[in-house]
Amino acid sequence: MIRVAVNGYGVIGRRVADAVAAQEDMQIVGVVKTKPDYKARLAVEKGFKIYASDDKSSEAFRKAGYQVSGVGKDLVKEAEIVVDACPEDVGARNKATYEQLGKKAIFQGGEEHDVAGVSFVAQCDFDQAVGKRYARVVSCNTTGLCRVLNAVDKAYGIQKARVILARRAADPEESSKGPIDAVVLDPVTLPSHHGADVMTVLPHINVVSMAYKVPTTHMHLHSLIVSLKDGGATEDGVKEAFEGTTRLLLFEGKEGFKSTAQVMDYARELKRSRSDLFEVAVWKDSIKIVDGELCLFAGVHQEAIVVPENVDAIRALHGGYSASDSIRTTNKSLGIIK
Amino acid sequence: MIRVAVNGYGVIGRRVADAVAAQEDMQIVGVVKTKPDYKARLAVEKGFKIYASDDKSSEAFRKAGYQVSGVGKDLVKEAEIVVDACPEDVGARNKATYEQLGKKAIFQGGEEHDVAGVSFVAQCDFDQAVGKRYARVVSCNTTGLCRVLNAVDKAYGIQKARVILARRAADPEESSKGPIDAVVLDPVTLPSHHGADVMTVLPHINVVSMAYKVPTTHMHLHSLIVSLKDGGATEDGVKEAFEGTTRLLLFEGKEGFKSTAQVMDYARELKRSRSDLFEVAVWKDSIKIVDGELCLFAGVHQEAIVVPENVDAIRALHGGYSASDSIRTTNKSLGIIK
Amino acid sequence: MIRVAVNGYGVIGRRVADAVAAQEDMQIVGVVKTKPDYKARLAVEKGFKIYASDDKSSEAFRKAGYQVSGVGKDLVKEAEIVVDACPEDVGARNKATYEQLGKKAIFQGGEEHDVAGVSFVAQCDFDQAVGKRYARVVSCNTTGLCRVLNAVDKAYGIQKARVILARRAADPEESSKGPIDAVVLDPVTLPSHHGADVMTVLPHINVVSMAYKVPTTHMHLHSLIVSLKDGGATEDGVKEAFEGTTRLLLFEGKEGFKSTAQVMDYARELKRSRSDLFEVAVWKDSIKIVDGELCLFAGVHQEAIVVPENVDAIRALHGGYSASDSIRTTNKSLGIIK
Amino acid sequence: MIRVAVNGYGVIGRRVADAVAAQEDMQIVGVVKTKPDYKARLAVEKGFKIYASDDKSSEAFRKAGYQVSGVGKDLVKEAEIVVDACPEDVGARNKATYEQLGKKAIFQGGEEHDVAGVSFVAQCDFDQAVGKRYARVVSCNTTGLCRVLNAVDKAYGIQKARVILARRAADPEESSKGPIDAVVLDPVTLPSHHGADVMTVLPHINVVSMAYKVPTTHMHLHSLIVSLKDGGATEDGVKEAFEGTTRLLLFEGKEGFKSTAQVMDYARELKRSRSDLFEVAVWKDSIKIVDGELCLFAGVHQEAIVVPENVDAIRALHGGYSASDSIRTTNKSLGIIK
Repeated sequence: MIRVAVNGYGVIGRRVADAVAAQEDMQIVGVVKTKPDYKARLAVEKGFKIYASDDKSSEAFRKAGYQVSGVGKDLVKEAEIVVDACPEDVGARNKATYEQLGKKAIFQGGEEHDVAGVSFVAQCDFDQAVGKRYARVVSCNTTGLCRVLNAVDKAYGIQKARVILARRAADPEESSKGPIDAVVLDPVTLPSHHGADVMTVLPHINVVSMAYKVPTTHMHLHSLIVSLKDGGATEDGVKEAFEGTTRLLLFEGKEGFKSTAQVMDYARELKRSRSDLFEVAVWKDSIKIVDGELCLFAGVHQEAIVVPENVDAIRALHGGYSASDSIRTTNKSLGIIK
Repeated sequence: MIRVAVNGYGVIGRRVADAVAAQEDMQIVGVVKTKPDYKARLAVEKGFKIYASDDKSSEAFRKAGYQVSGVGKDLVKEAEIVVDACPEDVGARNKATYEQLGKKAIFQGGEEHDVAGVSFVAQCDFDQAVGKRYARVVSCNTTGLCRVLNAVDKAYGIQKARVILARRAADPEESSKGPIDAVVLDPVTLPSHHGADVMTVLPHINVVSMAYKVPTTHMHLHSLIVSLKDGGATEDGVKEAFEGTTRLLLFEGKEGFKSTAQVMDYARELKRSRSDLFEVAVWKDSIKIVDGELCLFAGVHQEAIVVPENVDAIRALHGGYSASDSIRTTNKSLGIIK
Repeated sequence: MIRVAVNGYGVIGRRVADAVAAQEDMQIVGVVKTKPDYKARLAVEKGFKIYASDDKSSEAFRKAGYQVSGVGKDLVKEAEIVVDACPEDVGARNKATYEQLGKKAIFQGGEEHDVAGVSFVAQCDFDQAVGKRYARVVSCNTTGLCRVLNAVDKAYGIQKARVILARRAADPEESSKGPIDAVVLDPVTLPSHHGADVMTVLPHINVVSMAYKVPTTHMHLHSLIVSLKDGGATEDGVKEAFEGTTRLLLFEGKEGFKSTAQVMDYARELKRSRSDLFEVAVWKDSIKIVDGELCLFAGVHQEAIVVPENVDAIRALHGGYSASDSIRTTNKSLGIIK
Repeated sequence: MIRVAVNGYGVIGRRVADAVAAQEDMQIVGVVKTKPDYKARLAVEKGFKIYASDDKSSEAFRKAGYQVSGVGKDLVKEAEIVVDACPEDVGARNKATYEQLGKKAIFQGGEEHDVAGVSFVAQCDFDQAVGKRYARVVSCNTTGLCRVLNAVDKAYGIQKARVILARRAADPEESSKGPIDAVVLDPVTLPSHHGADVMTVLPHINVVSMAYKVPTTHMHLHSLIVSLKDGGATEDGVKEAFEGTTRLLLFEGKEGFKSTAQVMDYARELKRSRSDLFEVAVWKDSIKIVDGELCLFAGVHQEAIVVPENVDAIRALHGGYSASDSIRTTNKSLGIIK
């Protein structure tokens, strides 16, 4: 049993905690939470030990009637591997603690590549992380792009990829974030960091990206224009490549998938925890090759897509598993069919 | 085993089908679907027999490769009780078929009271429907209001209730409906029909309502101002009454429930199918009595709240169950704790 | 010529500056701005002298190539009356400066009543402010409510008013504020402050209010339920009273005004600066009396409604004008017909 | 005086009517309106003669108390040139009437190129339309793209342009259209028609496009990736080319233009009718050349951008004006600085 701590129990942390708890070879030794809100109460109901983020947080928990098992550092001591799911930049600050206590750690995509040295997408570079001390599970957008681009690259070779990201501006629970009626260029200056971030996982693929936020809470929408090396590439060939790719689902407009809304509605039918969609969604009938350039639309459920990646990253750091074994085990436990 | 047909497999129909299938005393004999979209595919994967809505629909299914068991009328023949979950006004037109084939039927809140003669909310008037031929499960808004007002009325008596409904304008999957950036008075002329609709279930309570649509996809938000008969009413008393009311959950702002978003996020943690919230949500710390008037906020998950009601309505029409037995059985099967 | 300074040049400040500049008896001596953004550039293009909010702000302006005339305090010295349009609570802190320099000042509704001692809506209590040192122009919501309730009260007497406010969550330019897909109770605990705020202007009217934010950027939407003293009140009488009320426009659903969107679209047709709607909008066909209670919908363009009030407040503090003269003059200058 | 009729008085029609009325060499002989709504009332207040769309519409106007001057055909007879601003496909059906009565006509971008034979953007191909019987002012998206791409093409030559369009899903007044919380692929199958449509105006530029709708009501947002012929192209050169291009404005993120919201807010400061932005908006600091490809963001105010084009198209069809004279005259009348 790999003893796992989850540091940060927000959108990603609570999902990773449940996913880890569902693995037969892992156990959750505790979770770090900052505030005694409803998520903390639900964590307790699930049987997770709560650790406060610091003494002040500890006090707040006690006042709210919680039994707290210690602070973050205490939890780290109990664990073999820490999944750090703290907000952007906090993970980097936490690294000193992991270092000092000699614990392995997984960071999220909000941190820089250099914090971990390895940027991780299981089906692309699992082996790079095997036995390492640290790995960074890349962001939801980067994870989705890597799955799609890697599949295309293996089938036909990629000369250059250009990606436009229409990002969901807030998660469903973030009721203070906007915009309400605007498209926010993020950033205004080009290119966005997403292309470079893909290249931390797939360094041989040239990616240029532009990004903005739109007033939605479910799914990032990617528009890809990919120059292919192989002049013989066909649309059917691309579809076949995607059919054979794990954690990638094809959706057809003619079945009613006209927008991100129906894809997320489909996810609600899968009887998964929190109605999560762990797979990147590619619109099958959007796949088109024009003058040697492949165009397509893909969607990413921002809350969910990195969850299986974190589970696999734990196995990679721990060592003793092959990529395919880990992916198969994780998939089965989460209801991912292929 | 009560043999149940579900006529109409949209937002409500597919939820009711799953809920019925989860009952030990019921079975789904088939569902009627109009189009071979992804919902139809998922119905087949669940093992439901598909019936087309008419010959044209039948043809569309065959073209899409579906095995269709017949049309709607064929299904009605197979069933003891039909749950009609067709769009507004279609239910009324279908009644002739149920009448002709001598089948019991349950209509939804889009139909008029007179279509069924009995308007149904299990915890308010189960007995009225026992052994009847028809019942109408009232709309999501009316169901939520009835649960709350009935509890208050039983505790303190209601002289008059005034309700303002901020309605979610579209369901999550309805990606063509708006508004995007407006509040739509629906209707402009006052009062709205909701007050009168509550009175089809609770005829002794005087309710006046106003309603508009806001650009959200999850939860209607009700603002209630209720003049109480009992001058000794207290806020604690109201809270206690709600604690003892089935299918009503209390949420506290101080736990992080600042908006409808966190309540729906909480629902995602309950490991229920489709992350549904079957309970009406009352904000506990909104409960306030000012000059003999009780004020509070309540939320209704529009896709889910009538699902347990449909299950109970089946048992009521069938006969042989008490209200409390049916409610307890339904609750248990759907993960409703109280 | 009344020499007016505008301290704070955001949503309200820049509108008030233009409105003041349009008066024949007033002049703008300068405006205080914190950042050298596009609003600052446009202010310069209009010929307004720019004052920085402090030394740091001054430096930022200079770096961006602006000629700055000083800091806020320098501007206050130049003025007879300051319109303080700074963000909530900043106005209260600025008061010491106005006091020290012996200048009259007008605060906005984000400040407490006690900061000024007089809460102002021109058509309700102009005379209270005449010759005073300070006045507070109440918030957009309170201004709209006061205009409507005062008209009803004068016609029929009000026993009690209950108001539910569906507030626009962000102004059009605020592209980082949400929610995107939720209704935010603001506050969860009841009642909201709006009722009490109306009573700072109309102390004899009992008002209880509840409020939440919805994902829109144009118009607050008020639902009013008003218990009338006069048993003989009629809907036509109410309409007539509103017809005779300044800064209140009636809109009819049958003319296409189904939502706040069409009212704001109408405003765009009026050839006013920024397409502003200075009037409170009442839906004429929503006016209904049920059991002695008047129900109606009203809308408030949150950016604009207090603009004429600020102009009138300047005249009131200055002294020498009657309410009706000031209102008439202001209305004419801003294109307000009645 | 060119006698102009406006057939269709919706979003575009009423703007074109005002713009035409503002020209010294044109007059409005009347407008065709289908319903007696508030837009009709405002048209009358502006002094425009109202013609009903047909007899049934005529009856509706009479019932509502309007004086109607006839039906559409009657108006066409009175005019030299008709601006057809009817909904998509209706224009094509109206053509028979224009043909029969021997009148020149301008269609909008909802119609196919073949309806008119000439697709028109004043600064790109004014001369093509001179003296012709028909012209089609292309859609708002196409107009914006043509202005930008034409400027780049003249400066450096374009090998290929790829465009992703994030379209506003509804106009501000369309309160029933969505989506509310989704991105709608429109169409799912690629490419979208926009690229081909640009090529009706600029046939030598190869454009591939993808498009979707986002929940906003103001501005389409274009992401452009343009392969340049001239290897010596520089970002400064592109900026300079845009500075010299009419009806194109540059906006800088550092001045606060972070989203479409601030650009539309800026438009409200321009004291134009309806706060319209007739110019295509290019984010200056988004302009970037990576590996010979120019990337940039541009925004289009969908309600306004074609208004000056319609005015110029009238002059082109009429004959006797040069492109530059017409553009200069139109610009001046509408407050377009360059």
